[in-house]
Amino acid sequence: VDEDRLPSWNDGPVKEQIIEFVRQVTDERNDDFVPPPERIATWDNDGTLWSEYPLPFQVFFAADRARALAANDLELAKEPAIAALLAGDRETLAALGEEGLMQIVVASHGNITPQELHVAALGWLGTAVHPETGRRFIDMIFQPQLELLRYLEAEGFRHYIVTGGGIDFVRTLAPMVYGIPRPQVIGSSEKVCFSVENGKGTIVKLGELRSFNDKEVKAENIAIHIGVRPLIAVGNSDGDHAMLQLAAGGEGKSLRMLVHHTDGAREWAYDREFTPSRFNLALDAAAAEDILLVDMARDWRTIWPAG
Amino acid sequence: VDEDRLPSWNDGPVKEQIIEFVRQVTDERNDDFVPPPERIATWDNDGTLWSEYPLPFQVFFAADRARALAANDLELAKEPAIAALLAGDRETLAALGEEGLMQIVVASHGNITPQELHVAALGWLGTAVHPETGRRFIDMIFQPQLELLRYLEAEGFRHYIVTGGGIDFVRTLAPMVYGIPRPQVIGSSEKVCFSVENGKGTIVKLGELRSFNDKEVKAENIAIHIGVRPLIAVGNSDGDHAMLQLAAGGEGKSLRMLVHHTDGAREWAYDREFTPSRFNLALDAAAAEDILLVDMARDWRTIWPAG
Repeated sequence: VDEDRLPSWNDGPVKEQIIEFVRQVTDERNDDFVPPPERIATWDNDGTLWSEYPLPFQVFFAADRARALAANDLELAKEPAIAALLAGDRETLAALGEEGLMQIVVASHGNITPQELHVAALGWLGTAVHPETGRRFIDMIFQPQLELLRYLEAEGFRHYIVTGGGIDFVRTLAPMVYGIPRPQVIGSSEKVCFSVENGKGTIVKLGELRSFNDKEVKAENIAIHIGVRPLIAVGNSDGDHAMLQLAAGGEGKSLRMLVHHTDGAREWAYDREFTPSRFNLALDAAAAEDILLVDMARDWRTIWPAG
Repeated sequence: VDEDRLPSWNDGPVKEQIIEFVRQVTDERNDDFVPPPERIATWDNDGTLWSEYPLPFQVFFAADRARALAANDLELAKEPAIAALLAGDRETLAALGEEGLMQIVVASHGNITPQELHVAALGWLGTAVHPETGRRFIDMIFQPQLELLRYLEAEGFRHYIVTGGGIDFVRTLAPMVYGIPRPQVIGSSEKVCFSVENGKGTIVKLGELRSFNDKEVKAENIAIHIGVRPLIAVGNSDGDHAMLQLAAGGEGKSLRMLVHHTDGAREWAYDREFTPSRFNLALDAAAAEDILLVDMARDWRTIWPAG
């Protein structure tokens, strides 16, 4: 009897197609065999590897940091997005869209070293709690995806997170909760500045957007940072569509999946009109482009880890 | 009796310091212990991992491609650097400096997909021969560095090449001769364009410089692409100094090395005035900044692999 390596996935066509795909690309006797160095899987983070409702969780971190920073910086406190954060005005925040949110993140993450950001994020992640569930944010990662990460690793895959979130924040999160090393995170980034004192160099984040890692930029950054076409690509919104289409290009098979948030009872149900990351055009294109829709209510036995 | 894991390194202070450093950072009982995910080594390529005389070898590849392309593109043939290449005018090429060379590389590498560049580079590397030694370029990699790469890997290090050379060219070279996977190459890059047809995405290199990966840009790109301070950094010119200084920053020990081309009999002897990559300011700073100088004539028993 085969051991079930994906126990949090319900039996059915989606689980079967995942396992069948992995079998085909890892079997040397199969025409679709892919050697290990090309077994690259790229993953969106927010809404794909952990929850993102009502806002990407990094925004809560940014809000907590912005509150502390704005107490000593009145100019910062006046910026529309920061003001909305401080006032708890979710409607304005949502209207500002994902790029607006990233600007908040940049403003609250700037003028520090990546190491200082890492220390701040590490402390916050250890204790911060979701306002509706009362769970720590880090306990709202998706248990079925954790199992899929480990299963694919055992089959020779290397994972990359390709996120619209800030690169240093997600580099703190990724090793801690997903077991993915820091260099395997590609994210939105600030411009950085290198300076030297007494022969010792320092990098400082400048609080100015360098790359907003969404839509076609995800595909371009995969080309620059990885240089290998993803064999598996997983997302949950229109912002991930280009990454999946990149995986579909070139020679040979690929497995492309979009997580559909259909479970209002155990998580949240949303798609086309959700901001900041709509799931609309990609949802319509899924069938024609042979993209596997992961229906959370139907396909996932568990959402979050127990306890 | 301990097995000599670096047989092409002569016994002496340099070899001893390398081995002692690795012992300290990998021994859990030592105060300088560093856990495996942070055992990152960054390597320059030209002149550090293989020879670079009289010009970085990618320039020979670019010249061969430019000849073929210029036959059908008179505008291209008129560009000063391309014209100098076609005429075999090394003096003009040298005077154009490293950024000029990169522009040639970009011009001869543009408007193709990374996969097409990979195929072209793979074919060229298999056969192209150095004009003075008669060896294939790929047989002019440094045997002592190959041993050091494997030794460090066995001690839990992950290598990144951080090169001024073109990212896609070096991504073809690195797995082939150094055993370093494609994603672990950071290089100079062209802007890329993503387009979609029938749901399938394609990346095209635009023949326009995006990032010239030299000097402080090497340090900045390490921050963006790796996000972990290098524990070991190895270079051979002023263009690598910032990378070594980044390794020296932050907490804890680091090992920084510069290869000094001192062996006119077995390789070539050059440093301060060499173009396109001078070794001048970094050579003067080495002692004060505790940078280990690898003297090729003194420290290396073998230069290139046998045969």
